[in-house]
Amino acid sequence: MQVLYFGLGNPCGQQRPRLLCVIVGFLFKSFRRREGRLNLTLSGQSDRPWVDEDLQDDTQITKQHNEEEDDDWLDSAEEEENVRHISYTPVRYSVTEMLERSGQFYSLMNLRRSVRFISPEPVPREVIENVIRTAGTSPSGAHTEPWTFVVVSDTEVKKRIREIVEDEELINYQQRMGLKWVHDLKRLRTNWVKEYLDVAPYLILVFKQTYGVLPGGKKKTHYYNEISVSISCGILLAALQNAGLVTVTTTPLNCGPQLRSLLQRPANEKLLMLLPVGLPASDAMVPELKRKELKDIMISV
Amino acid sequence: MQVLYFGLGNPCGQQRPRLLCVIVGFLFKSFRRREGRLNLTLSGQSDRPWVDEDLQDDTQITKQHNEEEDDDWLDSAEEEENVRHISYTPVRYSVTEMLERSGQFYSLMNLRRSVRFISPEPVPREVIENVIRTAGTSPSGAHTEPWTFVVVSDTEVKKRIREIVEDEELINYQQRMGLKWVHDLKRLRTNWVKEYLDVAPYLILVFKQTYGVLPGGKKKTHYYNEISVSISCGILLAALQNAGLVTVTTTPLNCGPQLRSLLQRPANEKLLMLLPVGLPASDAMVPELKRKELKDIMISV
Repeated sequence: MQVLYFGLGNPCGQQRPRLLCVIVGFLFKSFRRREGRLNLTLSGQSDRPWVDEDLQDDTQITKQHNEEEDDDWLDSAEEEENVRHISYTPVRYSVTEMLERSGQFYSLMNLRRSVRFISPEPVPREVIENVIRTAGTSPSGAHTEPWTFVVVSDTEVKKRIREIVEDEELINYQQRMGLKWVHDLKRLRTNWVKEYLDVAPYLILVFKQTYGVLPGGKKKTHYYNEISVSISCGILLAALQNAGLVTVTTTPLNCGPQLRSLLQRPANEKLLMLLPVGLPASDAMVPELKRKELKDIMISV
Repeated sequence: MQVLYFGLGNPCGQQRPRLLCVIVGFLFKSFRRREGRLNLTLSGQSDRPWVDEDLQDDTQITKQHNEEEDDDWLDSAEEEENVRHISYTPVRYSVTEMLERSGQFYSLMNLRRSVRFISPEPVPREVIENVIRTAGTSPSGAHTEPWTFVVVSDTEVKKRIREIVEDEELINYQQRMGLKWVHDLKRLRTNWVKEYLDVAPYLILVFKQTYGVLPGGKKKTHYYNEISVSISCGILLAALQNAGLVTVTTTPLNCGPQLRSLLQRPANEKLLMLLPVGLPASDAMVPELKRKELKDIMISV
């Protein structure tokens, strides 16, 4: 507490009240600072002005970060003042073709199911590369492409991932989850045993880059990174389905830090999804679920 | 300040220090309370146990909500204890077919660009219905299908949407946005004039349902709703590209409440994205951007 007196040069009698004033002031300040930091992380109309009120984007940007970088982030080779514009003349389909193609694609995608029974049969690496390339065509906030797809085929690493996920899931099921969620999953016969994690020929771990790192080591803001990476996962799922491969979309609870560490991913990357990928097992079963009808998901105005 | 003395019954001399101690205690308490409330909204390991630490999901569930509903949510006709399981035997492609199909799909998706110059030419409604149906095949947390696609073709409504978005965007650009973001967009020659909003034959406004409403009026938790709806948007973008239609993925800043009100969407729905959809204008231009190479987005382990 000595340090609080430093520079106040106060005679004894009034010492204690002043000390307390200093403490009060200190607490007020730390309270406001804390509040500020939390606002910044939440929605921060003032500090993160470009984040929509309705979205829960966790893009990492701070006022300090902005102030620090506004001066020289233009120097990056990556950031050109004016990108050349080119004409865009894609192939045009006739109305008949549009109807046919959109109907066929719907039929193909409508056969997709989340499959937990994956065959250990090998799948050519080139097919996996093609689906990842396809995911990489996704749009992203300010074209930051904030995704990293870690494709695991190593048996030992898959085994270790399974251990990490199952250990955490068991804790989740037993201790952390609300009854509702456990019940919802029970209904779909999911439990914490994830055999597919070391049976599937590939595990694709999708990381969102919460910020980028410029060549000089400075941070680069990745706008709407979680939404961008989720969109790319949608395109990835479409690509897998188109290739005849199956997966199940999983978001392993609280395994992110351990898996990031296991796979030696940098601090700016956070696990968004884990997709076991392969051919469906010959005895694969899926719950007989219905999808909502068009009238229940589309409103015409 | 009288009330702070109540019950302390303290003689004068030591009055001030005690008063300050009470203030300190009060500040500490309000600080902790505030912190607690924010945690609940953020990640809340204890109160929202199923939400991953690394994800910023804003699914609406509270302890109170859980406690209130655990008793009778089973009564809902929607929630069956055991869903029947059926065998899943999709078509199997040969290795050659898998390679071909995955390569072709990549080529098709790689031609997709975000296009701001949309032709007013009509597009058959059935094509739009097919792409929305396709988006509706997306997986979702506990199969909650938490999406609503509002398809606007009415001229007056499109005009009103444009007004709302442009008014807000102008404010965003001028007052709220950080220099970095304005610069990033300038680089892509975006500004707050959104002509496509009343030129495109369709606007698809994608709403995420932050919770569901059961027949009896009780709330139903929609796990990971923002991620689920973003995945469905990825599949929607793939479907549009496959049909020869173009769009640009936009997240209009702070327009959600006004647009929700204009379109009379219920309180549980929040705007995630706004996609103007149509054929590309014959003179459409796009920035000459490169995509990252495979080696920069895929890590093999």
